[in-house]
Amino acid sequence: MDNHQETLSKQAAVIELKPNPKDLADKDAHPERNVAPAGQTLKKKKMTLLMFSGEYDKALAALILANSGREMDMDVTMFFAFWGLFLVRNPESMSLEDKTLYEKMFGMVTPKGIEDLPLSRMNLAGLGKAMLKEMMEDDNTPPLTAFLNGARKKGVKFYGCKLSLEVMGFKPEELLPEVEVKEAKDFLQEALESEIQLFI
Amino acid sequence: MDNHQETLSKQAAVIELKPNPKDLADKDAHPERNVAPAGQTLKKKKMTLLMFSGEYDKALAALILANSGREMDMDVTMFFAFWGLFLVRNPESMSLEDKTLYEKMFGMVTPKGIEDLPLSRMNLAGLGKAMLKEMMEDDNTPPLTAFLNGARKKGVKFYGCKLSLEVMGFKPEELLPEVEVKEAKDFLQEALESEIQLFI
Amino acid sequence: MDNHQETLSKQAAVIELKPNPKDLADKDAHPERNVAPAGQTLKKKKMTLLMFSGEYDKALAALILANSGREMDMDVTMFFAFWGLFLVRNPESMSLEDKTLYEKMFGMVTPKGIEDLPLSRMNLAGLGKAMLKEMMEDDNTPPLTAFLNGARKKGVKFYGCKLSLEVMGFKPEELLPEVEVKEAKDFLQEALESEIQLFI
Repeated sequence: MDNHQETLSKQAAVIELKPNPKDLADKDAHPERNVAPAGQTLKKKKMTLLMFSGEYDKALAALILANSGREMDMDVTMFFAFWGLFLVRNPESMSLEDKTLYEKMFGMVTPKGIEDLPLSRMNLAGLGKAMLKEMMEDDNTPPLTAFLNGARKKGVKFYGCKLSLEVMGFKPEELLPEVEVKEAKDFLQEALESEIQLFI
Repeated sequence: MDNHQETLSKQAAVIELKPNPKDLADKDAHPERNVAPAGQTLKKKKMTLLMFSGEYDKALAALILANSGREMDMDVTMFFAFWGLFLVRNPESMSLEDKTLYEKMFGMVTPKGIEDLPLSRMNLAGLGKAMLKEMMEDDNTPPLTAFLNGARKKGVKFYGCKLSLEVMGFKPEELLPEVEVKEAKDFLQEALESEIQLFI
Repeated sequence: MDNHQETLSKQAAVIELKPNPKDLADKDAHPERNVAPAGQTLKKKKMTLLMFSGEYDKALAALILANSGREMDMDVTMFFAFWGLFLVRNPESMSLEDKTLYEKMFGMVTPKGIEDLPLSRMNLAGLGKAMLKEMMEDDNTPPLTAFLNGARKKGVKFYGCKLSLEVMGFKPEELLPEVEVKEAKDFLQEALESEIQLFI
């Protein structure tokens, strides 16, 4: 590892490509990104998360990654599709107007706010969400809402999948105000430009 | 397809390594890709999906991504493993011959066609697949079969995981004719060459 | 961006960037990696798996990928978070000391060893884990433990998520000895440096 690092530094010296060893986020991930002469802006690292799942624990994992990525000064986009849309519904602006019967029923049986999201695993007898939340409070871990608000404040980009909205009968105005409605191709475009893409 | 490649090459030659800012798909994702000297073909962007899950909704998400990727002229490979193999079983060529008792039982309790795939979440009381499908028809969204056939027509590469076939007791001839049987290392090789890799 | 492009072109010109067409694993995935002058070490390909799930079948898929990656001489890191931590608990060193009541209950209802992990899909009537394991033995496929030990012997790096440990009330000494406790940002750093990242 050290040898490897040393080799990289030598190589960098030879071709006048000197990565800053203190810049963890850039450390030999894409050395060519560090080539910019003084005064030029380096391209930011980028992460795109396809948030497909609507479970409490997966949402927690995704939001921890998103918050951490922003703290590392990465560009972070979350693309909410299918059940993932439940994370970005605005509890204050849900509506039953102009919906088909199925859409109304669907809207009523689904979670109203992110703290109502179910866990992804029902097969651990005795482990309820309340239990997990209680444990988190014991350890001073902020709940899901705190992570969601953190991501919003830190400037994580929120995209809502157009097709999923239509399939589920949600209206754009029912989502959090920062959610932009986008298509699958927009996700792919963001993902192509990202060093990290995850389907969660 | 070839025309697109040609256009890209010509563009690269004319502008001498100046990316076209209008070409979103190439925009600074991997700038070094645009370095190809005049006359050389630019490498296509590539996406590899590891389709592990066998649920209706995840299959829908994966196939929408695969179709969209091909429409953006990306190379797309889907590697079907474990439950994902259910997506590419050929309903017309399933066989019970030469199988152990367990394999026969397994073959019988599992879905026969992709429209029989279960949803990934059982914990949303009142939301059945029929309901979701009905909503999709309301919105003129084509069902899973349409997306699968779309992917086949558009030239998405289909790989079936060799080990999974053996574990599940499926025979290669029980899969759709375009499925090539491949190993985990083949998936990794494809993924290494891809800008986007997702485990679904 | 244009400046950055220009810099890259110059660099390519200076060092006469010649990718080796025979090196499949390096084949135009990241051509800049082949820039190293003779005698210098090429950077190894790298894969980082975020092991979030605790199911038997997903663990199997992840460990097959990890083992295969090492056999292809890739650097492989597995970051175990949430339910994924169950894969790397040391059955011989679990403790109930210094735990809250919730943590004790949680510890008792959760799987004790990896062969106790549940399957990810409960909705396939008639398919039990025993059945799947039996089929695997029929085909001489080694069980999960064998793949886990393989990964340990082959030098897959094991990280345990610090926050998950705290939330679940596990202590570092309850994990396998090779597990290093790390934070979400360490995962992101590894992922940034990796050609392949998957959320499993």
